[in-house]
Amino acid sequence: MLFMVQMQVNLPVDMPADRADKLKADEKALAQQLQRDGKWKELWRVVGRYANVSIFDVESNDELHTLLSSLPLFPYMDIEVTALARHPSAI
Amino acid sequence: MLFMVQMQVNLPVDMPADRADKLKADEKALAQQLQRDGKWKELWRVVGRYANVSIFDVESNDELHTLLSSLPLFPYMDIEVTALARHPSAI
Amino acid sequence: MLFMVQMQVNLPVDMPADRADKLKADEKALAQQLQRDGKWKELWRVVGRYANVSIFDVESNDELHTLLSSLPLFPYMDIEVTALARHPSAI
Amino acid sequence: MLFMVQMQVNLPVDMPADRADKLKADEKALAQQLQRDGKWKELWRVVGRYANVSIFDVESNDELHTLLSSLPLFPYMDIEVTALARHPSAI
Amino acid sequence: MLFMVQMQVNLPVDMPADRADKLKADEKALAQQLQRDGKWKELWRVVGRYANVSIFDVESNDELHTLLSSLPLFPYMDIEVTALARHPSAI
Amino acid sequence: MLFMVQMQVNLPVDMPADRADKLKADEKALAQQLQRDGKWKELWRVVGRYANVSIFDVESNDELHTLLSSLPLFPYMDIEVTALARHPSAI
Amino acid sequence: MLFMVQMQVNLPVDMPADRADKLKADEKALAQQLQRDGKWKELWRVVGRYANVSIFDVESNDELHTLLSSLPLFPYMDIEVTALARHPSAI
Amino acid sequence: MLFMVQMQVNLPVDMPADRADKLKADEKALAQQLQRDGKWKELWRVVGRYANVSIFDVESNDELHTLLSSLPLFPYMDIEVTALARHPSAI
Amino acid sequence: MLFMVQMQVNLPVDMPADRADKLKADEKALAQQLQRDGKWKELWRVVGRYANVSIFDVESNDELHTLLSSLPLFPYMDIEVTALARHPSAI
Amino acid sequence: MLFMVQMQVNLPVDMPADRADKLKADEKALAQQLQRDGKWKELWRVVGRYANVSIFDVESNDELHTLLSSLPLFPYMDIEVTALARHPSAI
Repeated sequence: MLFMVQMQVNLPVDMPADRADKLKADEKALAQQLQRDGKWKELWRVVGRYANVSIFDVESNDELHTLLSSLPLFPYMDIEVTALARHPSAI
Repeated sequence: MLFMVQMQVNLPVDMPADRADKLKADEKALAQQLQRDGKWKELWRVVGRYANVSIFDVESNDELHTLLSSLPLFPYMDIEVTALARHPSAI
Repeated sequence: MLFMVQMQVNLPVDMPADRADKLKADEKALAQQLQRDGKWKELWRVVGRYANVSIFDVESNDELHTLLSSLPLFPYMDIEVTALARHPSAI
Repeated sequence: MLFMVQMQVNLPVDMPADRADKLKADEKALAQQLQRDGKWKELWRVVGRYANVSIFDVESNDELHTLLSSLPLFPYMDIEVTALARHPSAI
Repeated sequence: MLFMVQMQVNLPVDMPADRADKLKADEKALAQQLQRDGKWKELWRVVGRYANVSIFDVESNDELHTLLSSLPLFPYMDIEVTALARHPSAI
Repeated sequence: MLFMVQMQVNLPVDMPADRADKLKADEKALAQQLQRDGKWKELWRVVGRYANVSIFDVESNDELHTLLSSLPLFPYMDIEVTALARHPSAI
Repeated sequence: MLFMVQMQVNLPVDMPADRADKLKADEKALAQQLQRDGKWKELWRVVGRYANVSIFDVESNDELHTLLSSLPLFPYMDIEVTALARHPSAI
Repeated sequence: MLFMVQMQVNLPVDMPADRADKLKADEKALAQQLQRDGKWKELWRVVGRYANVSIFDVESNDELHTLLSSLPLFPYMDIEVTALARHPSAI
Repeated sequence: MLFMVQMQVNLPVDMPADRADKLKADEKALAQQLQRDGKWKELWRVVGRYANVSIFDVESNDELHTLLSSLPLFPYMDIEVTALARHPSAI
Repeated sequence: MLFMVQMQVNLPVDMPADRADKLKADEKALAQQLQRDGKWKELWRVVGRYANVSIFDVESNDELHTLLSSLPLFPYMDIEVTALARHPSAI
């Protein structure tokens, strides 16, 4: 079941660099694990923003929330979720 | 799997009364069937608007879109869908 | 009398963990008490957000405000209230 | 129980004058009856707009929706409802 | 001359309690004086928010601004003013 | 007493030219009379839009609404009114 | 080069059914051809709306505009384009 | 003196094709004349929309409004004007 | 050449009083000088807000930006600029 | 390939002056280098705001994101990117 997830990251500009680096490294590791698991199906950067557009493939709404709220950057992100369905013109 | 669905109905003010009545009767019949089926779990009127707040309980995003787009009033509605998950404080 | 209440929690990202944990525990205890009392009728998490959609069943507007403003997280929340009525198609 | 109700009237600019006049006269008659009944407690015009700000005093959400949806101009209005409570500084 | 005034209070969440209490007490005292003077004609709480809807009855725009900017909470409020006129259907 | 009034004109694109011309001529005549009367103190065109920014000098909110709603283009305009006060730095 | 394209279709509710059917059939045929060509890489339905989220893979901005403006439904759509870049955490 | 002008064209979908073609041809002729005159300095299409971003170089606000309001598509456009100044980092 | 300039001042609520007073005094002195110079033609307070509506009369966009960015409160203001032209109905 | 890029700079008002000066000097140096390279084709100040409107000419979305995210002020900016295409009326 597919969802478009749009994440805007808002790190405080005065966060110490090592704290920010640690968060980003942890985020990257988990994001890549979720991609390898087939859960985080697509991940693109929005040009000009510290933001991404993603496609998640999950079993349920609950699984999606569990994944998103486990991301290290979750407390710093503004997230919008859009439920997707199969399009009748998709081949 | 639960979704909040907010529907705002925008019937053209010049639609002939019998056409509007037929649409509303068909909508009501289907809405009640879906409630009896356990798919359309909750249905409330928004005070002061020709709009409702609903809770749907479906197997998948595809099922939800199929249900919503089969509603007779679908071409006249502005619909917003919000995916819901279990809340950790819910009893 | 039913109201949809949408709560978005905005805890400061630099709040000490123990202070945040205490607030959340107190919030949870009160939320569960209000559910047991039949006042907080439904409580769902919005997928991807530190937010909820709730249904309250209260005697009056005053009672609803008293309940909401007594929540430990009240000073950190952005709350929207929507008055609900019985829908003519509800069974 | 008090509610602020904001009504913006959007009559089609090509509605025949006699149809518009009839609607407005019916609206006025009902509005004045509801004021005499103590339900429509306050009614002010918004300067520069075909709009009003009103205070309703009703028993329940259901009663408020019944009143509002019975207004002859209801199909032509965009209505926003705000639940009000007693203010601790009100004398 | 009537105005609807909508005030949203945004106290910093880290303001010391005694400073907040003093501000609120001063605000209340002045609000009640202005009500007794017939200037602050109506004052309601918006359910679920630290906000109010008010009706002011003043001689002029200048008097209204003088009153509002003298409120102790003025630096912490987001205020919207709407000029009101007599409604032709008001009794 | 001063008010900023912003008027956006939305004439239907299919209005017959002679009807539009008549409306505009009547609007212009009244606008110029109100300027000569000292009520419509300033009148500027917004560059690139069929819109204006105006300053009205009136005795009361009621007078302002009476003037604005008497304009021939009133049914085709979206109007916003902002109450102005004397600025402490104005000379 | 990837772009997210969000298309909201707004067909007039009074369009004759055969005209609408012809437009949709032509749209579908072209959409499927563009998918087979590898230009229209992904195509999903937004649940509850006559809208889609798409990913296009094109050589240039000009090519993207040429493709989008050639769609039979283009005059009836509200389209938003978001430029995407490779995400550093994408595998 | 430079201005960014953003024009969104909203032709009625039921405008007869020859009327639309005539309007567009006239618009194009004037747009090209203004470019040759050095007034309409830059003209770009917004990808995916019947809209443009333009840079105008004019002597005054009045000249800009005269140019824009003389465009054949002016009654069908929503136009936003942004005044530009020299940037201190521009070479 | 006339421009409407709308300035909203957002001083940090924790700015020391003497720093705020100095800024405001400097702002006032410059604002009054610009009024005497005929550049800052009108200056009104927006009722209920720490904001103003102003009319500037300048030679060019560059001059306007130079004036606005030289204001002591410039770093604390949100400014919107609207280019104005002569209105055909202005006398 | 052209893009309009709109950058709004939001430096914290309490950033030490030397830190801000260093950031701005570095930004200026890179902005001028990118202009000399033909990548940052146009750069204008928005009158009244610490913001710019720019035109970038790049090979790809990825190149644009790399350029923008390398700007020293990137963490302090809100950036919007609009893909541009050749306009059929451009000469």
